[in-house]
Amino acid sequence: MAETLASLRSLMASHSPPLHALVVPSEDYHQSEYVSARDKRRAFVSGFTGSAGLAVITMEEARLWTDGRYFLQAAQELSDLWKLMRMGEDPPVDIWMADNLPKHATIGVDPWCVSVDTAQKWERVFSKKQQTLVQTLTNLVDEVWKSRPPPEINPVAVHPLEFSGRSVADKLKDLREKLVQEKARGILITTLDEVAWLYNIRGTDVAYSPVVHAFAVVTLTSAFLYVDGRKLSTEVDSYMKENGIEVRDYGAVTSDVDLLASDQLTPSSSTNFAKADVPKSMNNNSADRGIIDNNMGEAGGNSNDFIWVDPGTCCFALYSKLNVEKVLLQQSPLALPKALKNPIEMDGLKKAHIRDGAAVVQYLVWLDKQMQELYGASGYFLEAESINKKEMKSARLTEVSASDKLEQFRASKEHFRGLSFPTISSVGSNAAIIHYSPDAKSCAELDPNSIYLFDSGAQYLDGTTDITRTVHFGKPTPHEKACYTAVLKGHIALGNARFPSGTVGNTLDILARNPLWKYGLDYRHGTGHGIGSYLNVHEGPHQISFRPAARHVPLQVSMTVTDEPGYYEDGNFGIRLENVLIIKEADTKFNFGDKGYLAFEHITWAPYQTKLIDQSLLVHEEIEWLNGYHSKCSEILAPYFDEFELAWLKKATEPVCV
Amino acid sequence: MAETLASLRSLMASHSPPLHALVVPSEDYHQSEYVSARDKRRAFVSGFTGSAGLAVITMEEARLWTDGRYFLQAAQELSDLWKLMRMGEDPPVDIWMADNLPKHATIGVDPWCVSVDTAQKWERVFSKKQQTLVQTLTNLVDEVWKSRPPPEINPVAVHPLEFSGRSVADKLKDLREKLVQEKARGILITTLDEVAWLYNIRGTDVAYSPVVHAFAVVTLTSAFLYVDGRKLSTEVDSYMKENGIEVRDYGAVTSDVDLLASDQLTPSSSTNFAKADVPKSMNNNSADRGIIDNNMGEAGGNSNDFIWVDPGTCCFALYSKLNVEKVLLQQSPLALPKALKNPIEMDGLKKAHIRDGAAVVQYLVWLDKQMQELYGASGYFLEAESINKKEMKSARLTEVSASDKLEQFRASKEHFRGLSFPTISSVGSNAAIIHYSPDAKSCAELDPNSIYLFDSGAQYLDGTTDITRTVHFGKPTPHEKACYTAVLKGHIALGNARFPSGTVGNTLDILARNPLWKYGLDYRHGTGHGIGSYLNVHEGPHQISFRPAARHVPLQVSMTVTDEPGYYEDGNFGIRLENVLIIKEADTKFNFGDKGYLAFEHITWAPYQTKLIDQSLLVHEEIEWLNGYHSKCSEILAPYFDEFELAWLKKATEPVCV
Repeated sequence: MAETLASLRSLMASHSPPLHALVVPSEDYHQSEYVSARDKRRAFVSGFTGSAGLAVITMEEARLWTDGRYFLQAAQELSDLWKLMRMGEDPPVDIWMADNLPKHATIGVDPWCVSVDTAQKWERVFSKKQQTLVQTLTNLVDEVWKSRPPPEINPVAVHPLEFSGRSVADKLKDLREKLVQEKARGILITTLDEVAWLYNIRGTDVAYSPVVHAFAVVTLTSAFLYVDGRKLSTEVDSYMKENGIEVRDYGAVTSDVDLLASDQLTPSSSTNFAKADVPKSMNNNSADRGIIDNNMGEAGGNSNDFIWVDPGTCCFALYSKLNVEKVLLQQSPLALPKALKNPIEMDGLKKAHIRDGAAVVQYLVWLDKQMQELYGASGYFLEAESINKKEMKSARLTEVSASDKLEQFRASKEHFRGLSFPTISSVGSNAAIIHYSPDAKSCAELDPNSIYLFDSGAQYLDGTTDITRTVHFGKPTPHEKACYTAVLKGHIALGNARFPSGTVGNTLDILARNPLWKYGLDYRHGTGHGIGSYLNVHEGPHQISFRPAARHVPLQVSMTVTDEPGYYEDGNFGIRLENVLIIKEADTKFNFGDKGYLAFEHITWAPYQTKLIDQSLLVHEEIEWLNGYHSKCSEILAPYFDEFELAWLKKATEPVCV
Repeated sequence: MAETLASLRSLMASHSPPLHALVVPSEDYHQSEYVSARDKRRAFVSGFTGSAGLAVITMEEARLWTDGRYFLQAAQELSDLWKLMRMGEDPPVDIWMADNLPKHATIGVDPWCVSVDTAQKWERVFSKKQQTLVQTLTNLVDEVWKSRPPPEINPVAVHPLEFSGRSVADKLKDLREKLVQEKARGILITTLDEVAWLYNIRGTDVAYSPVVHAFAVVTLTSAFLYVDGRKLSTEVDSYMKENGIEVRDYGAVTSDVDLLASDQLTPSSSTNFAKADVPKSMNNNSADRGIIDNNMGEAGGNSNDFIWVDPGTCCFALYSKLNVEKVLLQQSPLALPKALKNPIEMDGLKKAHIRDGAAVVQYLVWLDKQMQELYGASGYFLEAESINKKEMKSARLTEVSASDKLEQFRASKEHFRGLSFPTISSVGSNAAIIHYSPDAKSCAELDPNSIYLFDSGAQYLDGTTDITRTVHFGKPTPHEKACYTAVLKGHIALGNARFPSGTVGNTLDILARNPLWKYGLDYRHGTGHGIGSYLNVHEGPHQISFRPAARHVPLQVSMTVTDEPGYYEDGNFGIRLENVLIIKEADTKFNFGDKGYLAFEHITWAPYQTKLIDQSLLVHEEIEWLNGYHSKCSEILAPYFDEFELAWLKKATEPVCV
């Protein structure tokens, strides 16, 4: 570690210009949340392995910024060489650099690993102190990373219509209509899930996210995919041709964006453009390429000459190649269509969540038995001190061995393709580490006297899942019950919300927090994120967060969103409950202002542990909801179980007294 | 009306340059919400008398924008010559003008009646269509307004320390420290309540708001008040001198802002500056005027040469005189100190609200008796159809005669100085007009079969009040009860909220709406506003609204804020419940993240009508709160009443069964 920092500082000193600081973000060239092994540069330099964080190395020190989910984990993983900076408590990274680096300082970053929005924000902050953001020509971390894994060559698969629900032709047609609307002649697509969604392809380049390392460029008349050609079979190659998509090398995106900027990017003649539907509002009155007859608005007459780039996700490197005057910096037109699940995706998601819930319940049944047999626990249903551990069998159950079993149950289900993120399997105080990732060698043993939290999900061909349950196999304390109940009350309140069309997630966030705030409790993470259809487990553009979103994206019918409040007591325990919801029209009695009212529908099915609920704290409406959910759980999951499991589920979903 | 429009259009045509449109805002030169009779230009041209709205006159048409509180009233008041534009539903005024006026159009506005923020926003929007905002040299409305009232000459009164709680010297000292912190050498104060608050003066220039038409300029070493000198008695003149405030004519602000811009504004030698405390961080090393030895921050070295202007409230006319490079556009440093009530103000506010609550209860007792005697109503407590009206006495009770009686009860209380806004006294469908203002000639008669809503408040020397209650003296329908109960649930939920320090009002707003949203109901207004200390009834900088605030102002200890959800059914009835709350530290069991948790305390005292509550819809916690509030109401107000009133109050505050 010290050696890495020394090598980096030496490269910083010999850089032209010499760098006062080097910023190492978590993200890859596509601003991904989960990145492949060779892109884990920030983890390599800092030792902190969480999914979100940013490292800054100066000549004298090294600091690591991360958010509330990772405060505990980062504190554990960082060596003395690093200082942890807590986001929301310590100064933001740009302000800190501006205030702590000398006037006229030069701050280096690999422009491929930072978004336009971020880079421009930093430039503004730095300029006030006459400091400069320098785009390094190479990635300095890569230069000192001797054992950096080689590029992955994994096959690309076509995601068939029976799961994707919409053809590439259809998606391209919509996209091109949006380009015309916004007077753009092309778009540069850099996020991996947008490329995969648009072209209906999936891959295994990145663990947990079934995406392919690729860029895409779509113009009014052409479509390109930039990907390592070795990943494409002959069949996939043909599929691309059939869909009018020209495949070019991953690295060719650099020069092609130059061509795009100067309007000289043209497909090779071999590409079949018959399928490249040209929007109706266009007239192809040039044999060469489409010239647009723009009929939109009185102010019209301008030709479509903008290149659309999403500044929140496009890397600064590619953006810098475009003509600033002719860039349309706006949320990607794919973000919303991807978030609004079509009927086939919705059907798939519901089915995937039922199979996934069955796996979770099977895991709970198995775990309950293990905890009683191995540790003398009173079990899932009874509240009693456990029998002394030492008298028990020598077999051990750890956070990792337990979660491996959970994965087995999932893997036995139809369409399973892997996990959707690293399973959080956490006992006692580890559960207070919000994004805890157990390590097989050092992880904790299960404990009948402690809370056990597991947050997990899988990738199925028909949908992505994400669920959290918190359980106790012995005797929970009244405080643990009170906290579990407060979290449950927030979870129910959000899930039961009805709200007028146009409402953003930030408005609803307090519903989940309010029961905790009554006690002076809170949690340091958002409350909900969208979820993909066999794609990323965290998907925008909407969210439910205490932070107002930078972009105003109202919650809309057919979006997915999680409902996951929690409470974490450092050193003691953690609680989180998470279901995936879909947004639908509400059946309210009235419809004031003809706005249309929306509501949520739970698609996750697994019981809450009634033993952990202090029922005296629930109101009638909450108990009714809980009983209704449990009854439906039992009904929906029953077909998957043997008799023993079925009996367990019946008991776990018995109604609570009203 | 047609003549006024014709005269205006003729002035617009002969204007240089000719104007395609003329904007007539509601506000006076100080961006006041309530303006004096001679400043009601928008009401004069349009006929719409509500407190908020904006008129646009083009050569062909006339349109009036207003918000949800006034949709019904505006529709009733506007003639055929006008088209109503509903804010939040129709396009915003600037977008509408940009889209509907020709390219290169000129749009005129009196720059004294529009804020910097608004004018600059319009300029940006217009410039996209090559349109121009033109500052008219005179106010065109004034030119056609033959019967415009003359300027008011009302005496200025000193607001004594026993009510204001802080001396002018103390306030000026704090203000100058903020100027130094922000590298400003002076500030231009244009809002009437800020001038009144800073100099501890009050007046009667504007109905309902005890302010004086005046501007103020404060530099690091001097302080000016721009006011019609005839309003100042010899005593007040001496008070100004003692406090180091130089009085200049109201109109002199124009030339003095020029001087301020060029740093040539100096007090006359007769002003006593002994009291003008110079901040400690300053060294007066020039005999002439203070030269600042700036010790702040490494980036320092700059002299204090900015002029502070609040762009949200300063008129575009005065701002335009300043050097743009040297203007600090930032929320006024007086906004927050004014909102954070000092202990003496807090004590006064609580006392004023008790007296005010006593007046409200006396009114209810009187009204209950009248409704039974005049209209055969079953009364406040009983639910029955009223006896046929025609058999009753001929005496009539109208919205206006009733509210006059309410004013009498208030006027009998200590320190009464007038109403704080036009009383909303509204029967049945009139109650659905959110800011209904009854007219003595045309207003409705009270009706034992309809809901009666009254929203009213007063100015007392020790505080400003604002309260709304909704009552029924006959047999309310189950639907009216369900709606009343939903409003009450929201009112209670917000009032009972606990929230971490740093929370903004927008976050809490949904607590008041949530019980209505469950039914698909809502209300088209904000949920809470600050309230002054014998000042404006609507006071910022904080608020509780469904709209995210332009400025991030967290709720803080010792702020006041109203809690006033409602529900309005056009043509049928309206419901609103409003109390004033103060923000205090919460006594939560825990204090997660050491953030400090906050809570509200009600300072308004008057019962809710239990007859209108559908108790089956309340949960235990709500009933407990209601009974506790009622019990305290009865205890606190008792000293003010005769035996009959006391018996009524006891009955009105009887506990509801848990």
